Amino acid sequence: MKNLDFLNKALSLLKPVHEEVAKPVSTVQVESVDEKPAVSPAPEFSSMELTVGDKVTIDFGNHFVGYFGMKLSFTGSHPDAPVLLRLRFAENATELLEKQEDYHGWVCSSWIQEEQIHVDIVPSFVDLPRRYALRYAEIEVLAISSKFKLVIEDVRLRAVSGADNSKLLPSALNEECSRIDEIAVRTLHNCKQVVFEDGPKRDRRLWLGDLRLQALADYYTYRDYDMVKACLYLFAALPMPDGRVGACLFLEPEPEVDDTFILDYSLLYVNALLDYFKATDDMETLKELKDTAFLQIDLAAKQLDKSYIIKDSDKMGWAFLDWNLALNRQAGAQGVLLYSLKAAFEIAVLLNDLDKKRVYDQLYYSCLNAANEILWNEKEGFYLSGADRQLSWASQIWMILGGACDRNRARDILKRLPDSGALSMVTPYIHHYYVEALIECGERSKALNVIREYWGGMVKMGADTFWELYNPQNPYESPYGGTIVNSYCHAWSCAPAYFLRRYFTP
Amino acid sequence: MKNLDFLNKALSLLKPVHEEVAKPVSTVQVESVDEKPAVSPAPEFSSMELTVGDKVTIDFGNHFVGYFGMKLSFTGSHPDAPVLLRLRFAENATELLEKQEDYHGWVCSSWIQEEQIHVDIVPSFVDLPRRYALRYAEIEVLAISSKFKLVIEDVRLRAVSGADNSKLLPSALNEECSRIDEIAVRTLHNCKQVVFEDGPKRDRRLWLGDLRLQALADYYTYRDYDMVKACLYLFAALPMPDGRVGACLFLEPEPEVDDTFILDYSLLYVNALLDYFKATDDMETLKELKDTAFLQIDLAAKQLDKSYIIKDSDKMGWAFLDWNLALNRQAGAQGVLLYSLKAAFEIAVLLNDLDKKRVYDQLYYSCLNAANEILWNEKEGFYLSGADRQLSWASQIWMILGGACDRNRARDILKRLPDSGALSMVTPYIHHYYVEALIECGERSKALNVIREYWGGMVKMGADTFWELYNPQNPYESPYGGTIVNSYCHAWSCAPAYFLRRYFTP
Repeated sequence: MKNLDFLNKALSLLKPVHEEVAKPVSTVQVESVDEKPAVSPAPEFSSMELTVGDKVTIDFGNHFVGYFGMKLSFTGSHPDAPVLLRLRFAENATELLEKQEDYHGWVCSSWIQEEQIHVDIVPSFVDLPRRYALRYAEIEVLAISSKFKLVIEDVRLRAVSGADNSKLLPSALNEECSRIDEIAVRTLHNCKQVVFEDGPKRDRRLWLGDLRLQALADYYTYRDYDMVKACLYLFAALPMPDGRVGACLFLEPEPEVDDTFILDYSLLYVNALLDYFKATDDMETLKELKDTAFLQIDLAAKQLDKSYIIKDSDKMGWAFLDWNLALNRQAGAQGVLLYSLKAAFEIAVLLNDLDKKRVYDQLYYSCLNAANEILWNEKEGFYLSGADRQLSWASQIWMILGGACDRNRARDILKRLPDSGALSMVTPYIHHYYVEALIECGERSKALNVIREYWGGMVKMGADTFWELYNPQNPYESPYGGTIVNSYCHAWSCAPAYFLRRYFTP
Repeated sequence: MKNLDFLNKALSLLKPVHEEVAKPVSTVQVESVDEKPAVSPAPEFSSMELTVGDKVTIDFGNHFVGYFGMKLSFTGSHPDAPVLLRLRFAENATELLEKQEDYHGWVCSSWIQEEQIHVDIVPSFVDLPRRYALRYAEIEVLAISSKFKLVIEDVRLRAVSGADNSKLLPSALNEECSRIDEIAVRTLHNCKQVVFEDGPKRDRRLWLGDLRLQALADYYTYRDYDMVKACLYLFAALPMPDGRVGACLFLEPEPEVDDTFILDYSLLYVNALLDYFKATDDMETLKELKDTAFLQIDLAAKQLDKSYIIKDSDKMGWAFLDWNLALNRQAGAQGVLLYSLKAAFEIAVLLNDLDKKRVYDQLYYSCLNAANEILWNEKEGFYLSGADRQLSWASQIWMILGGACDRNRARDILKRLPDSGALSMVTPYIHHYYVEALIECGERSKALNVIREYWGGMVKMGADTFWELYNPQNPYESPYGGTIVNSYCHAWSCAPAYFLRRYFTP
């Protein structure tokens, strides 16, 4: 099922990551104050003589992705036994207050960035082989001979990214927006590795939903068209057995598609391809990948019931939209189908494929009419989802983006939503589409406010990069059963760089 | 203080280790039955599909020193998260019943052969970078994604030794002795690495007391004179500031002497040098190293009181003799001084150094007479040690080896010892000198019985190599505060290979 031509084209476009050396900026102490992390200065780590139970916490001053190394020496007698260390790497100080053994969630605890290592020879330079995502490194002595004390003379991070800093486009934003943009760019920078990863802490993998948003941000920052192109070819090269594009891909040990399928992600392949063409004018790629894009629409159409509504499902993860576990995804998925049909229609026009154009035109209006007949509730004035007729932000956003209603109704819906009691949004991912919906219906200043308040809320909480999850009402929530596995630098959160640079540059 | 000529000579004699690949012979289960390990067959490890909490124990069928590697694969979906494994390596099944967290002894717990590792990519071959001493490897899954199961397809050990198996001299012993010899040779083989180590599990280091016994066994097995010569030069090249040879040396990160000094070990340098000359006839080395040897005598002589008795000390470890913590070491140290003076005298004769010969002659008889006047107790018929006049096996053995009494008295002492209530011996180290004392006074059949009963006792307990500690009355005792750090393959226990091959080959 692999398309080896596509795969080879993709692999030939991938480049080695760039490296820079990051040095610590201070030694800190992280304590829990009112169940929140409080970071305060501590004695310089290199001045400490460490014995059993001692630990130091080193602050690199910003979020990095890379390989940690440390220069160890000693005081006292010649080391006569190995040293056993525990190392913990944290993107966010809150992770240092959480314990691996207290986590019992459903996402694998192996993602927790904690190691136990024996150092056989001191003095020595110890290079850890695994890659970490971190701002803080905590080093604790678990076992050491009484004949000597350990000194951590120096540490360094071999920081890696697929982003070429010399190519970053300048921005001309006001101070507040510039700070948000900077953090968004840092988020993109650190998620950009050999391919676009969703998060450098967890899952470190190419996900389609993230890819689309990263690519949009990238067109206005690093303009690394080759990486986007490579990722689009990878998904097309490695479909699932029935031709659907998977939700994510593995590159190691061999490029391979995961067996996870997410309906909305697969449909957004169409939009991602169109975005790419608009950014690059690369007709050859559009032509080569159009079949993969069109196939996603055709397969999704099979999931329509006879009244042209996407069939609902109890299966966890059949559609994503947002990480709110209570969300009914039927209406949102219908909206995504409409949204991708618009893109498919546009691609058919670009390729002058009149048959496809006509087919998608018909399908689009059938789905649109069905949405307004069946999902729209005139009395409430909102689109409702599923057998329980659930009202949610996600449903409204995707119906608007799908063009289910005109601009006036869209504006009205978005205006009444905050006081409607609608099921809330919890991720920057759905917030991206919320901002897009506001812009789409002419509410630019409201869109800017969302960026200032939502992403700005993370900035106020000290974010160096934007988080996978952020619910202003409950900043420490996790859909995974524990925040210790949350990712604090997540691709789908880099949206401000795209929106601010595209729409809000004075 | 380093003698660089000696150091360079030593380093130029050191050779890379030999490698062989060891494969597992079975999968086992280790349980505690009556607080002793019971090893029983378990399903073949490669047939298991492992998830959280599962573990397998692999038996390599013999004791090895080397680098562990494993080939991992999976069943189920493509691995979507790292795997967190705990690996434990055990020389003796009893170590698998002991927990790192229950050990609170004074020897550093970092010696416990236990690792936690993250495996980022499956399938893969995972090579652990550290060297272990083991017969058993236990692999436990601490964290794994629910999307797949782990399969350990294969494991292997890159076993290393400084011993060249093709050069091992044959032996012609009866079946019982041949089995004891085989285990002694295996002990020597596995302790022999770049230099002679005391134990490949712990401390993995060149100790002078062990070196002498390893060298004796080596002259009758591998005849690797270069390694002995290198070790003798290392001690001479790296003295302590006042010229004393240290009790042990480090080779990494740079060759350096430890700051531990043990009086009897330093004196045995003289005997080790003489042994080497007798084995090799290497006069050049004898000439170059004689000053180091003589200096040990001269410095020890400064510790004599005015009646020519070694001053007693409360300092832990001032003399070793045996690991019985209750042992008073004064009489034993006096015996070691006499023993090394005999060797020094012999070296002086060989070198035709008449001045030295006369000096050591006089010193020897002064110390000998003092021992018989002050330490000998006519009523009890034993040599007694320290202010409390302690009766111990160690004191008698060393007085006899030092020649303090004639053969008849020596035989009589050794005959009455078992029923005397004398403080017992706990290590194969002092048992080596016990056997030597028996042979010295013509009790060869008794000497053979000690080998058959003492070392044979370890064989009956399933030893693959001879242990650092063995007290038949209490096989699971440890001077370290916990048996988990005991070494089950220890250089000073390889004596049977020397004695059996030298004295008991029919």
